[in-house]
Amino acid sequence: MTRYRIAVVGGTGPQGRGLAYRFALAGHEVVVGSRDAGRAKEKADEIAERAGVTVAGGENAAVAAAADIVLLAVPWDGHGELVAGLADALAGKVVISCVNPLGFDGGGPYGLVLEESAAQEAQRLVPSARVVGAFHHVAALSLWKTPDALSHEDVLVCGDDVEAKELVAGLATAVTGKPGIDAGALRLARQLEPLTAVLISMNKRYKTRSGIAITGIQV
Amino acid sequence: MTRYRIAVVGGTGPQGRGLAYRFALAGHEVVVGSRDAGRAKEKADEIAERAGVTVAGGENAAVAAAADIVLLAVPWDGHGELVAGLADALAGKVVISCVNPLGFDGGGPYGLVLEESAAQEAQRLVPSARVVGAFHHVAALSLWKTPDALSHEDVLVCGDDVEAKELVAGLATAVTGKPGIDAGALRLARQLEPLTAVLISMNKRYKTRSGIAITGIQV
Repeated sequence: MTRYRIAVVGGTGPQGRGLAYRFALAGHEVVVGSRDAGRAKEKADEIAERAGVTVAGGENAAVAAAADIVLLAVPWDGHGELVAGLADALAGKVVISCVNPLGFDGGGPYGLVLEESAAQEAQRLVPSARVVGAFHHVAALSLWKTPDALSHEDVLVCGDDVEAKELVAGLATAVTGKPGIDAGALRLARQLEPLTAVLISMNKRYKTRSGIAITGIQV
Repeated sequence: MTRYRIAVVGGTGPQGRGLAYRFALAGHEVVVGSRDAGRAKEKADEIAERAGVTVAGGENAAVAAAADIVLLAVPWDGHGELVAGLADALAGKVVISCVNPLGFDGGGPYGLVLEESAAQEAQRLVPSARVVGAFHHVAALSLWKTPDALSHEDVLVCGDDVEAKELVAGLATAVTGKPGIDAGALRLARQLEPLTAVLISMNKRYKTRSGIAITGIQV
């Protein structure tokens, strides 16, 4: 396995923490990023303790600049500003987006009506980045609660850079024990991202942590 | 099992034909609708021969008016006009929408950018209809090629009328051998409908007929 240095921007949030833990467990060098370097280091220590390996932490731009691969695990609110502010650090890199532009109201969660997905926005703001959408649908708590592979679930991967997409599909092995599925072009992130609203809706209805599996494909 | 009279509007298309076949096999009284009564009757005969039961056919408005449940299995192109034209026949009825507003170009399939889903449009045009979104993701050919239950797949059902949604979840047994999953409110059809673009994309990439399964929920 190739060991990558992966910066998790927004690694103090539940999805970032969960993915950082899984990547660290799988043997990658993980660096947790946050706006606040102190909080990043606290979270890195928490992840390191659980994973039994070293995990570093630092300010978002610094950790992104030093990484091979940057995972964007930040809230949709403020996403554009954050990505624009990291443009130099993200330039030319494989950038994974698991950002979900969702709304919540009395009727539950729903996908925002947007012309472009979060992944497309990141690509537009940093044209040289090799943006891949992935890891939207694996539940944060399922990632964190056990070290067991989520082998019944699939990671769907979309992107326009074929090599970057293959690399990220390989990284999915850290989560599900098998490569991710090539879901198609980056623009299909418009479909993948808000699907998380459906999963959250089902979680409430059935009091569970639901996930996605694709039938008819063996990876 | 309650036996329903189900009108399949657009039953001459592949998704309508496949679902008509499965409902007929399961013992429901199926009537195939088309703009052209003659074509509807031809398709009904084809389905009847395969299912080994009687299937009737007729013009869309006539078959919808005589049914307990109306399945809309029509193309997105022209959907609004068609539904508005059937408003009297659909009033007060359980109306199932499996309509997928997709676009296709050189980059493959994609979900159209819309303020409302097809299911929401139908609900707006016929406010008294009890609209439920379902059966978007089961592949037309998988429905038609064998009579076997697609037991590895799940039917996701969304709607705001709880009783209608439960009824349609029960109808899913005809397709997967188990009830459909309650995915939430009708507005989540905005997420369910264009997800079909991702499935079509994967079908091309992997030369398969992919489907959706939900992990973590036992229905």
